[in-house]
Amino acid sequence: MTDIIPLWVSNRHIHLSKADAEALFGEWFQLTPIKDLSQPWQFAAAECVTLKWPKWQIEKVRILWPYRPQTQVEILMADQFRLWILAPIRLSGDLKHSAWVDIVWPDGKELSISEWMIIAKRHIHMTPADAEKYWVQNNQIVKIKCWWERWLVFDEVVIRVADASSLDTHIDVEEANAAALPQSSSVELLLNDEVRLYSSSNQVYA
Amino acid sequence: MTDIIPLWVSNRHIHLSKADAEALFGEWFQLTPIKDLSQPWQFAAAECVTLKWPKWQIEKVRILWPYRPQTQVEILMADQFRLWILAPIRLSGDLKHSAWVDIVWPDGKELSISEWMIIAKRHIHMTPADAEKYWVQNNQIVKIKCWWERWLVFDEVVIRVADASSLDTHIDVEEANAAALPQSSSVELLLNDEVRLYSSSNQVYA
Repeated sequence: MTDIIPLWVSNRHIHLSKADAEALFGEWFQLTPIKDLSQPWQFAAAECVTLKWPKWQIEKVRILWPYRPQTQVEILMADQFRLWILAPIRLSGDLKHSAWVDIVWPDGKELSISEWMIIAKRHIHMTPADAEKYWVQNNQIVKIKCWWERWLVFDEVVIRVADASSLDTHIDVEEANAAALPQSSSVELLLNDEVRLYSSSNQVYA
Repeated sequence: MTDIIPLWVSNRHIHLSKADAEALFGEWFQLTPIKDLSQPWQFAAAECVTLKWPKWQIEKVRILWPYRPQTQVEILMADQFRLWILAPIRLSGDLKHSAWVDIVWPDGKELSISEWMIIAKRHIHMTPADAEKYWVQNNQIVKIKCWWERWLVFDEVVIRVADASSLDTHIDVEEANAAALPQSSSVELLLNDEVRLYSSSNQVYA
């Protein structure tokens, strides 16, 4: 039996904390939803920000909802080389000793906070019922097989189990392009011979 | 025994034909070498061009030497989505029915030719002696294992055997970033259970 799982491809993006959102936009501002994401109740907003480093900047970085306890920027590995900055590969929320960046809202207001930029570590969201079905557990490291034109097998994919999840594999656009995977396609879940768990030194978001 | 092979990562670039180079730069012009490439006698030039589509353009696309029988642009898969253009995944020289683009030299001179833009298909250059050593043949499809932070196994890697080669795996920056592979690192050659040969409908360059 093969276990086929849906795929979601993410570009660079930002989640704001409520406090930072209010500092940027004012207390009564609400983000404007323009596209549902794969996870329940999450959306991409019409609003974008500019990421600004001493050497370069990236414009039109999309804000995603919901708010997070701490503002978090997720960039691509290519952005590192363009911008002369190193960001660690982490799960969402694991921000301690990560990279930093200045955020510029289109009206020119700047927000500067440390320790909150990462490259997303590839992962699969699922419910406890899914985890039982696929014989995996939270934080387990699995592989995914991609059978589009650039066939490959990604290893080091982390299982993320939470009640309010929707079954979905999350990779970024460089990973998707390396496999020639289009948005909204599928991948095959493969188990490693031995069960290995991913351990993060910090707390991560479900 | 594991077979460890050097890696070379390519960004988007262009090879010119001699005729197009003369049309762009004049008959007596010579490219200025700034960096050796992994293959013998090949170099990256100081000169760059702009690729121009109706919707967008990409500046500072590096010219690589040697000249090719036909001008050939190699882009990244991400460029396709940015520019609303589809390019096929091909080996070097396999340009029939590929995509097209206008080339703009910095002085504003435009060159427009059809059928010459591809996304490079990942491949391994080697000599006949290497092929014998690794038990492979020209056009054979193999896998490569990458053991950096984003572990993965690329399939559909084509063996390219030629006398004037240097042993080297060629992938593009998106593939390298998906595996967190730095330039000048190494990969492991893995053979598929059955020998499969890649067949291109057109002639390719060694």
